[in-house]
Amino acid sequence: MEAFVGDVALVKPQVAFFEAYGSAGYAVLERTISVVRAAGTLVIADAKRGDIGSTMAAYSQAWLGEDAPLASDAVTVSPYLGFGALEPAVELATEHGRGLFVLARTSNPEGGQLQGAQLDAADLSGVSAGKGVSVAQSIVDAAVAQNRDGRDTVGLVVGATRGHGLDLSEFSGPILAPGLGAQGATVADLAEIFRDSRELLLPNTSRDVLRHGPSVSALREAAERVRDDVENGLA
Amino acid sequence: MEAFVGDVALVKPQVAFFEAYGSAGYAVLERTISVVRAAGTLVIADAKRGDIGSTMAAYSQAWLGEDAPLASDAVTVSPYLGFGALEPAVELATEHGRGLFVLARTSNPEGGQLQGAQLDAADLSGVSAGKGVSVAQSIVDAAVAQNRDGRDTVGLVVGATRGHGLDLSEFSGPILAPGLGAQGATVADLAEIFRDSRELLLPNTSRDVLRHGPSVSALREAAERVRDDVENGLA
Repeated sequence: MEAFVGDVALVKPQVAFFEAYGSAGYAVLERTISVVRAAGTLVIADAKRGDIGSTMAAYSQAWLGEDAPLASDAVTVSPYLGFGALEPAVELATEHGRGLFVLARTSNPEGGQLQGAQLDAADLSGVSAGKGVSVAQSIVDAAVAQNRDGRDTVGLVVGATRGHGLDLSEFSGPILAPGLGAQGATVADLAEIFRDSRELLLPNTSRDVLRHGPSVSALREAAERVRDDVENGLA
Repeated sequence: MEAFVGDVALVKPQVAFFEAYGSAGYAVLERTISVVRAAGTLVIADAKRGDIGSTMAAYSQAWLGEDAPLASDAVTVSPYLGFGALEPAVELATEHGRGLFVLARTSNPEGGQLQGAQLDAADLSGVSAGKGVSVAQSIVDAAVAQNRDGRDTVGLVVGATRGHGLDLSEFSGPILAPGLGAQGATVADLAEIFRDSRELLLPNTSRDVLRHGPSVSALREAAERVRDDVENGLA
């Protein structure tokens, strides 16, 4: 992480690669998060956790709790059990001024069928009422409703690799947009895909930077180049 | 875990409660899994992991890998990124004779809207072709197709607390059925809810047993009572 600290606004560790090594991997992740945050760089733990009730509360505590060993600035969460089941994470993030990013429309082709399925219009209320929306749009709408408190605690994950088909016009929170680089999206694509919602767009590239490692200076140069490309492309 | 080893067929640790303590919690979980498995009791890690590509492969390695510190007999996974994105877990489980349980219809009320959303019939093929199925049914159908290799590597999570509305008649794998006890389902409900698919039903209760702790003998008695109730109710 030495290569990035101070030069980039945020780091998004993929929790799975640490979890594969069990407690030893998590000890490394704890130190990584701590070093990066101490340097003033934001950490979004890419964990895609999702559960219900007291179990969801425990995941929230793990990633957003005040004194938790893995405490990060934000965590990614997965809504298969319903946006409402994520409530313990929303509450804890709000309380501690942290954030969460809920998967809406992901960048992989296998996700399209489920995320594009249509909700029963009779079930819908609030922002989605009467619209006959897709699963992904229902997540966007639930995030819009949650963020009406003005804190924008809830961000979204919307892939940059394909037409997302979402109405993001009412969404004011941050958007995490994986898919830049190795997954195929270019900086020019970003401007097109997120036309109406560029204010808090966080385009995200991993393999395209990491293949330049392990030299610290090469990694830093690659990260700076992507950052400059994105800033120019969206200017 | 001393209270259960040898008397029950399987233990399903909720990973979140260990993860909340970071690497220290995972060290305890590693020992727990190791002690339980060494006694011949199956361990299903309730982790609800779900991601894509190399990240999903890393989660699979974490929970199903041959020499991984957290290696369990099976792991629960979440399909928001599509059943197809879980392929690395299916492959590794098949290779090592382990299993996975994919969330289909969960026991919480917030999950109903998303899991009941209708897939676009034009997208469907295989088992689901032309049926205009729900998200949850599409997971069942994908599991049926996967299990045609005769190994029944893929199990399902189908909550016991409410009418699941699923056609499970073609599904031959194991079903994990949370919701018994504190979440409201009774043993009599199980017989009704899973009429056609009792062969490998794994009803599951946690809080209803754990509130009898921490005495080891009280815990064991509670677990045995639930086991006997279930066996009698399904006989």
